[in-house]
Amino acid sequence: MQPSGVSRRRLLGAAGVGAIAAGAIGVGAGYAVGDKPVPVVPDKDALPVGFDGRHQAGIMTPAQDRLHFAAFDMTAAERDDLISLLKDWTTAARQMAQGNDIGDFGAVAGAPYSPPEDTGEAQGLPPSGLTITIGFGRSLFVDAKGAARFGLDGQLPERLIELPGFSGDRLDPAISNGDIAIQACANDPQVAVHAIRNLARIAFGRASVRYSQMGFGRTSSTSTAQVTPRNLFGFKDGTANIKAESEKDVEDFVWVQDGDGPAWMTGGSYLVSRKIDMRIETWDREPLNGQEAIIGRAKGSGGPLSGGDEFATIDFEAKDDAGQPRIDPKSHLRLAHPDVNNGAKLLRRGYNFVDGSNGLGQLSAGLFFIAYQRDPAKQFVQIQGSLAGLQNDLLNEYIVHVSSGLFACPPGVGPKGYWGEGLFA
Amino acid sequence: MQPSGVSRRRLLGAAGVGAIAAGAIGVGAGYAVGDKPVPVVPDKDALPVGFDGRHQAGIMTPAQDRLHFAAFDMTAAERDDLISLLKDWTTAARQMAQGNDIGDFGAVAGAPYSPPEDTGEAQGLPPSGLTITIGFGRSLFVDAKGAARFGLDGQLPERLIELPGFSGDRLDPAISNGDIAIQACANDPQVAVHAIRNLARIAFGRASVRYSQMGFGRTSSTSTAQVTPRNLFGFKDGTANIKAESEKDVEDFVWVQDGDGPAWMTGGSYLVSRKIDMRIETWDREPLNGQEAIIGRAKGSGGPLSGGDEFATIDFEAKDDAGQPRIDPKSHLRLAHPDVNNGAKLLRRGYNFVDGSNGLGQLSAGLFFIAYQRDPAKQFVQIQGSLAGLQNDLLNEYIVHVSSGLFACPPGVGPKGYWGEGLFA
Repeated sequence: MQPSGVSRRRLLGAAGVGAIAAGAIGVGAGYAVGDKPVPVVPDKDALPVGFDGRHQAGIMTPAQDRLHFAAFDMTAAERDDLISLLKDWTTAARQMAQGNDIGDFGAVAGAPYSPPEDTGEAQGLPPSGLTITIGFGRSLFVDAKGAARFGLDGQLPERLIELPGFSGDRLDPAISNGDIAIQACANDPQVAVHAIRNLARIAFGRASVRYSQMGFGRTSSTSTAQVTPRNLFGFKDGTANIKAESEKDVEDFVWVQDGDGPAWMTGGSYLVSRKIDMRIETWDREPLNGQEAIIGRAKGSGGPLSGGDEFATIDFEAKDDAGQPRIDPKSHLRLAHPDVNNGAKLLRRGYNFVDGSNGLGQLSAGLFFIAYQRDPAKQFVQIQGSLAGLQNDLLNEYIVHVSSGLFACPPGVGPKGYWGEGLFA
Repeated sequence: MQPSGVSRRRLLGAAGVGAIAAGAIGVGAGYAVGDKPVPVVPDKDALPVGFDGRHQAGIMTPAQDRLHFAAFDMTAAERDDLISLLKDWTTAARQMAQGNDIGDFGAVAGAPYSPPEDTGEAQGLPPSGLTITIGFGRSLFVDAKGAARFGLDGQLPERLIELPGFSGDRLDPAISNGDIAIQACANDPQVAVHAIRNLARIAFGRASVRYSQMGFGRTSSTSTAQVTPRNLFGFKDGTANIKAESEKDVEDFVWVQDGDGPAWMTGGSYLVSRKIDMRIETWDREPLNGQEAIIGRAKGSGGPLSGGDEFATIDFEAKDDAGQPRIDPKSHLRLAHPDVNNGAKLLRRGYNFVDGSNGLGQLSAGLFFIAYQRDPAKQFVQIQGSLAGLQNDLLNEYIVHVSSGLFACPPGVGPKGYWGEGLFA
């Protein structure tokens, strides 16, 4: 495969929305705008996100709208297989991030008697802000008996711990952990699906998909220029998230620094994934003031219950007329707050999901939580330890963690580099 | 509930894309546009689709990008329960189509000691082209023993048949049929999910969700102004679909006409749903020319193999230099074509889906096929009868139908009407 790729770009946007600009269509149920001018917005799908750089894209990149996340297990045992896989994946990811098909011939050109090098469903779609981010699980370095794999002796970061069990966890091993994680984010889910599918195809004979997860509504902002979105409890989520504009927080809490562990991880970050099922039907019967007390924020504005708007300073000491704390000490807001977690913060980058329905007439819905951090023990483990358990976060009556993963995401690569190359230096 | 609803609209778009317009952000992996101007496109999310009219919206409306489809079973047995449910649903659907919260108080206002009337996750989101379309299954009219339900004796349309079994079907009853279907389409999946969730909530005690399905990439155009999208086989899908601009086709093949059956269905349409699993990993190993022969079209342009571009006239008689037909008689294109199906056409309105992965390292992916028609026996049953079976459509080696439904979608309603009111006249 050549890094140039086969262009799939066309000016799809303008034609695709022509039906709207034309106003109502004849059959009764058209767009109700009549002759009113249609507002215009920047076409964020038209833009590619740079792939090469000091850090991987998809971490501090302003969170895109959609997710396809997949964990892979290696099916090959040789170090060379792992290296060749990482090289091939990097080449393909770099091409797709530009909005191109992969391979020399892509989906439609060149070699009619061979399977196409690209599966083709993204033909004609713009880059859509695609980022593809890789992380390595602990099991890539050591097997269940503690023996090194792929000759990676001595490269296992101390910070790539086995996550402890938390009170209330009901983890399904089939959708937890994995040797390698790939996070594909894009504004168009078809583009994110195309990325995972083609990487899975390239991996054939070397690695296979262990599990994958679709997500739709980003549940955090990672830039001050983004509006805070809402999770499936209907609340703004991620108001106090680390933002790209807070450079000190980004360096202190997101990027692995020199001396934090093996050199190959400097400039990288640790990804924690947790699939969190929400009992939304039960939540929906909770009165508004109860919901707000559990979260610690107003549902409308997102402001803390101590007063003020979404970004107002939180006052955990504020009391109401009856002398009770305005923000419940067991609220989600307080127990997740840096003040009660030795100052720990996370970069959250999760997505809402709906996996259809269960057999009880309920939506199988929730939050696919993703957080990036410099040191999982001091950050995710600290905070989740404060939250977990029915005696702690009031929200735990309505949620259950069903999967878990921790992955070491290496730094970014130069124009000729490949993911994880520092591991084999 | 009042039909006015509680406005949730704000100018989210402009702020939400600010991060992009600002160009690269400091941490290495920003948008690669530098100082280049960002192109603008019409903001299709800003537009509400009219709810009231002669026909329901969501059928001939230009297909939106995302789907949440749900089938419900009645849990109440009284006719009045069904009527009240349909009235409450219509009121809520009308509010949501305008981009409003449901109820008098919505998600955040008015009654703090009661559960919110709206679940809130669409707060701040624009209408996003939401349409909500209802259909009634055969089981709403008669029970398994043939006895009338809800006093609907004599209202069962003859055309609301039990679909026959087709060769190769592997239908799962748990995700097939149902008393009532709701199709929610929007450009933002969070808006479509919000609609289904709130209708399910309103139904509590009267009906419950039997199954639901998310879909992302529309796989058909329903207007000549839309670009033909691609399915997960990487091919353009829906080139020859009925388009809103073809008024004769729409009347002949989509809308139920006077005299076609009971008066309450005039102006309505019949919805067939089929969840079609795709064996995409196997497909991806088929050579390009094999894929094209199976479909009958070129993968790149979408043009028929008899020559020409996507919309070129198809010539099933065209031969290659060896005297073989250019379009295989068993290709999907030919066997689905009106020429071999007594002229039958369908309005297709399906969506791609990925439900994560199966335990074999494969994506659980495919097409949630939705088609609207005037007479299912003469249209869907005719065409699927031509396609089904390994001795017919070459594509059947790569697909399997796992769910099925047929629903009678009543006509649209006036500003004070409710879905299906003609049933109770």
